Amino acid sequence: MARYKIEIEYDGGAYGGWQLQPNAETVQGALERALATILRSPVRVSGAGRTDAGVHALGQVASFSTAAAVDRAGLLESLNALLRPNAAVHSIDCVAEDFDPRRDALSRLYEYRIWNERWHSPFWRKYSWHVRRPLDVAAMSLAAESLLGEHDFSAFRAAGCESASAVRRVLRSELEVWGGFRIYRIEANAFVRGMVRSIVGTLVKVGLGEMDAREFADVLASRRRECAGPTAPAHGLFLVSVRYRE
Amino acid sequence: MARYKIEIEYDGGAYGGWQLQPNAETVQGALERALATILRSPVRVSGAGRTDAGVHALGQVASFSTAAAVDRAGLLESLNALLRPNAAVHSIDCVAEDFDPRRDALSRLYEYRIWNERWHSPFWRKYSWHVRRPLDVAAMSLAAESLLGEHDFSAFRAAGCESASAVRRVLRSELEVWGGFRIYRIEANAFVRGMVRSIVGTLVKVGLGEMDAREFADVLASRRRECAGPTAPAHGLFLVSVRYRE
Repeated sequence: MARYKIEIEYDGGAYGGWQLQPNAETVQGALERALATILRSPVRVSGAGRTDAGVHALGQVASFSTAAAVDRAGLLESLNALLRPNAAVHSIDCVAEDFDPRRDALSRLYEYRIWNERWHSPFWRKYSWHVRRPLDVAAMSLAAESLLGEHDFSAFRAAGCESASAVRRVLRSELEVWGGFRIYRIEANAFVRGMVRSIVGTLVKVGLGEMDAREFADVLASRRRECAGPTAPAHGLFLVSVRYRE
Repeated sequence: MARYKIEIEYDGGAYGGWQLQPNAETVQGALERALATILRSPVRVSGAGRTDAGVHALGQVASFSTAAAVDRAGLLESLNALLRPNAAVHSIDCVAEDFDPRRDALSRLYEYRIWNERWHSPFWRKYSWHVRRPLDVAAMSLAAESLLGEHDFSAFRAAGCESASAVRRVLRSELEVWGGFRIYRIEANAFVRGMVRSIVGTLVKVGLGEMDAREFADVLASRRRECAGPTAPAHGLFLVSVRYRE
């Protein structure tokens, strides 16, 4: 059995999330079906992160093993022919037999796009959260900084999270102004369920002046979900990349 | 009668072009209907450029006159409520009674987006032309430069163009590499029909090595449409902005 690592991009709006489900089209399901068709044997795919329904990916990483002979360039072409138009595989690499995209990941980078103009965006409406009132980016940046380092993220954890611990290490947490966008980027060793969307929902309260950076830090310290703001919508969130040891 | 200038953005895929037509939804038609509903009297809208079916705009300029009392901030909100989700008005300004968005324009800037990766883009498929084979951007840039200045653009003019003359003055003609994109930008005092898409179709021939920059210049000099390359698809083209005297 040879093991392969693939990098894949997808429009989350077309899928009921990453993880296999009986009654919805998922990215994992689409990939497994395409691989089984091409390789003519059942294939199990594991992913680095289980993106929720509606969440997009620019660089999700997944892995599979197969005994079938694989011409990687040909497989890339065939996979993309079957996955189009909503998902696209960028690369297929050979990896060690024990490679685990989830466990071996050093960190994940997510990006959340807020569209902050008075008018809705015809081009970005499916790929950003429209917040009409002007956001105070300086206040949001200050609040975002307080997430850096190792913390218990229970306050930003959605119901149904299966992790034993909510302690995660945040390596990057910052805002960028890019045209009409306010883009929040967060890199961490791992994430608890719903973490980025809960953080963004709370950061927007800071940006609207309903909470200050000090109170934001208090929410984190409280470890209580009911202290945080609402969950930001899924369609503004992108899994940008997953980092591994060279 | 007061006269107003509006800046509008739209997803061209949702419209049969800018100009009013009996059997298709057009941007002009949608604007006139929305304005008539809000102002409670018929309104005629004129635009700076008649974008073809499928062509997008980030900053189209249009104008209308009305005897109705206009609260500009309120009108902006109401217009956007009626135009959403495929079009959005950015601004409404008062202008001189004789303002003509077409005649008074000093120049128009268009942008054409080519997606030049082996894989299709789930996010950009409706907003770019997918060219799989790698493009030689240096060769394309050299060819693009030969368009600068005043020329007769008959070689890049589509059938049905109503202009008496095909002479236009090009102020900017350049390529940018931006991630997987090759973006062509052209600014000119005005354009003949289909000009940008004919130019891009021919530039891509240069990028693929099927024509060199010298032969590209010869196409322009020939003034013969049959010497140019194919017309690039509409969905990669964006009218970016229209410039006026201050």
